[in-house]
Amino acid sequence: MIIQLEENIRQTEVDALISLVHTNGFKTTRVKTQFKQYVVAIGSREIDIRTIGHQPGVSDVHRVSDLYKLVSRKWKVEPTRISLGDGIVIGDQALSIMAGPCSIENENQIDRITDNLIKNGIRIMRGGVFKPRSSPYTFRGYGIEGLKMFHSIARAKGIRIISEVMQVSQIDSMYDYVDIFQVGARNTQNFNLLDALGKIDKPVLIKRGISGTIDELLQSAEYVFSNGNEKLILCERGIRTYETAYRNTMDINAIPLLKSKTHLPVVADPSHGIGLRTFVEPIALASLLAGADGILVEIHEKPEEAISDGQQTLNFNESEALFKNLKSTFELRQRLAS
Amino acid sequence: MIIQLEENIRQTEVDALISLVHTNGFKTTRVKTQFKQYVVAIGSREIDIRTIGHQPGVSDVHRVSDLYKLVSRKWKVEPTRISLGDGIVIGDQALSIMAGPCSIENENQIDRITDNLIKNGIRIMRGGVFKPRSSPYTFRGYGIEGLKMFHSIARAKGIRIISEVMQVSQIDSMYDYVDIFQVGARNTQNFNLLDALGKIDKPVLIKRGISGTIDELLQSAEYVFSNGNEKLILCERGIRTYETAYRNTMDINAIPLLKSKTHLPVVADPSHGIGLRTFVEPIALASLLAGADGILVEIHEKPEEAISDGQQTLNFNESEALFKNLKSTFELRQRLAS
Amino acid sequence: MIIQLEENIRQTEVDALISLVHTNGFKTTRVKTQFKQYVVAIGSREIDIRTIGHQPGVSDVHRVSDLYKLVSRKWKVEPTRISLGDGIVIGDQALSIMAGPCSIENENQIDRITDNLIKNGIRIMRGGVFKPRSSPYTFRGYGIEGLKMFHSIARAKGIRIISEVMQVSQIDSMYDYVDIFQVGARNTQNFNLLDALGKIDKPVLIKRGISGTIDELLQSAEYVFSNGNEKLILCERGIRTYETAYRNTMDINAIPLLKSKTHLPVVADPSHGIGLRTFVEPIALASLLAGADGILVEIHEKPEEAISDGQQTLNFNESEALFKNLKSTFELRQRLAS
Amino acid sequence: MIIQLEENIRQTEVDALISLVHTNGFKTTRVKTQFKQYVVAIGSREIDIRTIGHQPGVSDVHRVSDLYKLVSRKWKVEPTRISLGDGIVIGDQALSIMAGPCSIENENQIDRITDNLIKNGIRIMRGGVFKPRSSPYTFRGYGIEGLKMFHSIARAKGIRIISEVMQVSQIDSMYDYVDIFQVGARNTQNFNLLDALGKIDKPVLIKRGISGTIDELLQSAEYVFSNGNEKLILCERGIRTYETAYRNTMDINAIPLLKSKTHLPVVADPSHGIGLRTFVEPIALASLLAGADGILVEIHEKPEEAISDGQQTLNFNESEALFKNLKSTFELRQRLAS
Repeated sequence: MIIQLEENIRQTEVDALISLVHTNGFKTTRVKTQFKQYVVAIGSREIDIRTIGHQPGVSDVHRVSDLYKLVSRKWKVEPTRISLGDGIVIGDQALSIMAGPCSIENENQIDRITDNLIKNGIRIMRGGVFKPRSSPYTFRGYGIEGLKMFHSIARAKGIRIISEVMQVSQIDSMYDYVDIFQVGARNTQNFNLLDALGKIDKPVLIKRGISGTIDELLQSAEYVFSNGNEKLILCERGIRTYETAYRNTMDINAIPLLKSKTHLPVVADPSHGIGLRTFVEPIALASLLAGADGILVEIHEKPEEAISDGQQTLNFNESEALFKNLKSTFELRQRLAS
Repeated sequence: MIIQLEENIRQTEVDALISLVHTNGFKTTRVKTQFKQYVVAIGSREIDIRTIGHQPGVSDVHRVSDLYKLVSRKWKVEPTRISLGDGIVIGDQALSIMAGPCSIENENQIDRITDNLIKNGIRIMRGGVFKPRSSPYTFRGYGIEGLKMFHSIARAKGIRIISEVMQVSQIDSMYDYVDIFQVGARNTQNFNLLDALGKIDKPVLIKRGISGTIDELLQSAEYVFSNGNEKLILCERGIRTYETAYRNTMDINAIPLLKSKTHLPVVADPSHGIGLRTFVEPIALASLLAGADGILVEIHEKPEEAISDGQQTLNFNESEALFKNLKSTFELRQRLAS
Repeated sequence: MIIQLEENIRQTEVDALISLVHTNGFKTTRVKTQFKQYVVAIGSREIDIRTIGHQPGVSDVHRVSDLYKLVSRKWKVEPTRISLGDGIVIGDQALSIMAGPCSIENENQIDRITDNLIKNGIRIMRGGVFKPRSSPYTFRGYGIEGLKMFHSIARAKGIRIISEVMQVSQIDSMYDYVDIFQVGARNTQNFNLLDALGKIDKPVLIKRGISGTIDELLQSAEYVFSNGNEKLILCERGIRTYETAYRNTMDINAIPLLKSKTHLPVVADPSHGIGLRTFVEPIALASLLAGADGILVEIHEKPEEAISDGQQTLNFNESEALFKNLKSTFELRQRLAS
Repeated sequence: MIIQLEENIRQTEVDALISLVHTNGFKTTRVKTQFKQYVVAIGSREIDIRTIGHQPGVSDVHRVSDLYKLVSRKWKVEPTRISLGDGIVIGDQALSIMAGPCSIENENQIDRITDNLIKNGIRIMRGGVFKPRSSPYTFRGYGIEGLKMFHSIARAKGIRIISEVMQVSQIDSMYDYVDIFQVGARNTQNFNLLDALGKIDKPVLIKRGISGTIDELLQSAEYVFSNGNEKLILCERGIRTYETAYRNTMDINAIPLLKSKTHLPVVADPSHGIGLRTFVEPIALASLLAGADGILVEIHEKPEEAISDGQQTLNFNESEALFKNLKSTFELRQRLAS
């Protein structure tokens, strides 16, 4: 049960409300986000929720049978829209393209890619500086210095930045230099990290776990939301299956399903979803037509020289074609829906 | 290695050729299809294939490193196009929609669905009469009598028929009443069935196994082709993964990958691919945009009354919208490719 | 619901019983096996089963909530014991070892292996003559002539034979030459084959499907049983997962779980379960200690020269050690259980 | 390539060595552990390793082709043995049983369980105080205060403690109160946590990821080792597959395979491996017979009242039987190996 509180609810009213809810056999979590205040009540007893709804200071109350509550669409039907300023938005009727290299490498690389993005009207750039790598002996990213370099070039051109955060202690140092914190597939259930990202006021994109379920992804989002941050984006990036013909198996089913279960924006990462450059475009277009709010894609001027993930990274020609075709696909989707 | 023979090659030339190939350390399989004659040579020795190409009666020779040979696009680049007569074709530049109920039920059902298909310009109807079912206590289809009923109504209206064959002994009795034999996901590696379907002259659609790999699917197609039947269609219908939110996980990656590996048409079955009615359309459109040559979809006048698979079957309104949107998506794909 | 009939029940009593069951909203399947007669009633209505139990000619009645009925242990608690004659039994308190090559190759091979089995007190030999192979260009077994050769040598030494059947039409020709029909992992849901094997009076071993669930395996067994054949053995042989370090992932969990769900014997195939010779023994011993009634294992005098599966086949020294250690493990299991 | 250094190697010798290795096209990582010093060299060039072996200060050099190096058995054949004091060891010829509740709950609970362990000669107790939970609304453990309570009772009785650490910032506060840090299945690829655990001098047990590969687990161990901590234990705890009949699928194959690939001890967690109380014992015994160095098992005086994981937790009677049977199984294994 989600109990939405009025903005000016008094502490005594909150106390009385929580006490009433406890009396009915529910456990409660008090949630204050950037936007609103809630009490999430967990329990299995049947009660008439109108008795809660009539309490002073309560603006609304909803029963939510899902394992996740605040991110559920059973409670909030209208889609969440996240603004990054300058008219850059994610979710709802927007098409969000986030493109860039796997790893931030050097100034020239960033310069060339940002120019390319601007030329194509793309306003959000991805780029990793903390890289999760299976082996301790491989390149792990240029760290916070790399991020500052990335930020100074991109911001000067009005480009927004999404970059991966791997642990709690990085949040503070990254905060001034990113617009969206990305939680990678190996950290989808790093609950301490999720807790901490719930306490800041910047958007967080959560990738589905390497073999994460839909329900687990939504519950991970619930961690962030219930800690106070409503600015959340989910990302399907392929799952681990028995098939070895591609790096991951893009789970296209997840896209319309997630859109039906949550009010949060859902984007797709076709680069990791298939892991083979030749097929990134068809998977990107398919993901968009299936309902994704955006695409996260790896591009590089010379993928064959990229420090990491070159085999799934598009060059400038390929990415320009992709951007153009994404827009045509988005137009078709809007037209079919109208 | 695939050695393509001239139509009028003499037996003595064939014998000499095969002998030469054996001398080079290869095993051979002689293949005669509806259209052509081949010798498939399997071996690992390095030879100059021009010595083979220059033999009398040989029209062409190709090295194919894949596990499958005759279905590989390494040998035959131009896409295979299968004609069902009356201008109905599958593959290449055609959009093929095959729609109908999970199970053939009665005359009225067929009558209503065929009318609906005609109204929407759909010319191929699916409908099962031999149903593979996990439990021996559930409905297993109306058998050959059901198929005859299906045929008499559909054919009178010019509708082509695709229906599942489950064992060798059914091929003969079904032969006069189907236009495409469907091999279901539980029979993808029923090699005796594949052998037998290679000896007939009607198209065969092979579904990917429940947890079949791409390579296994292509090798199963090779069974049919190498027994003499070139009229083959492959079908992605979702794979088994750990995710329980849907019946299967539609493997959208498989579509462009298969198209790059084989010259055979590839269709998608979104009904089984996700198994939930609400999401069949987005998965169908995504599959088409990713490169599928067609869509196999379950429809019924009253899905809630269908004998089987009702939860993933579209009603007439839903299917009309789907047909229309598939056409718009196909137009977009043609436009993007041009 | 399983209704067990008395041996001498009269047809009028059967008719009356079935009519009564139908009146209560159940569908019925009449089952006559080698041993007994049953009516399996499927339906969801709540009824007092005693009203059925009191009908003339009914010896017993059980409610079975599982998807499978006659193979369920909810109905028959005591384990099924299958006799192959000469005191060779499978199930209950017996340890059954079935060893032999992947493929029957020639007389000398059979001769050497049978001698080795006799020396070690092993009385059941496996050996394939119909081989399911992914590619049409690989060796597919010596067929019925190979089986006759196998039979003539093995039977002369008192060895029982288990061999794979791939399609209905092979059953008759194999019948005189096998003691156990094996259904391979690609045919676990070949329902026509299961139907036909239900109509004979020889034991049938069913392997779990390549990615088959426990419930699917038990329902496949139900096909055979409900067609009239109670002599059934189940086999865990590894499942398909994302892990590529071994051929399959032996699902050791399945062994005690199956033993708790069914009265049928359950054996394990460690050769396919891991697919790497070095590790066949520990997996075999672990499977036995987890509760398996027996082990199906690939052995060959010279595995490196075997036509197929050499990489997972034990040589004579390795298999002798395995046989000895299986016996010690079985003794421990008996001791722990007492 | 692993270059083992002599204890008293001089800095100038180290510098000269590293410079030589770089000249040969290798990248190097210098590793100092509790016990020894190494240089790990990564590169693909063919060199005569004897030229390295003859350098001053080098005691040994090994080529290791695995993705992991220092944890590989290709380099160090003899098994690693970890001592916890008082004769309590893990690895090599020891049988290590670690038992205790999923969550530490209260003093009485710990008191009862420690008494039970002592009675059965078990000297290592598990117990979680930081609990990773899919939902933010469920119990997440009693934290560091719970651990102190756990420690004060257990240590007074000579019991060693293993408990899960979820993030870097917990390491310091937990350090004085645990004997083994456990890395859970959701953190197997939390590389920052692994880095930090490499910098301490207490044993670390790493569980295999929820769908982690064998190679990923070994590379995660390499993170810890290459940061300076050789005291490592690996744990198989079941993987995620399509089968829903149990919580996870215990991957028994992993046990002998890991033992062949690494010199580190490998233990098994049957509680999570199957997740159903009735079957914990057979899976535990099977894991041990397959080669595990020990068992990690959940026990509780009253599992039905446990705060978490009750359905897979053994009561005292069940655990006493398990302990006894583990010892008998271990004796058998020792006997078979001799």
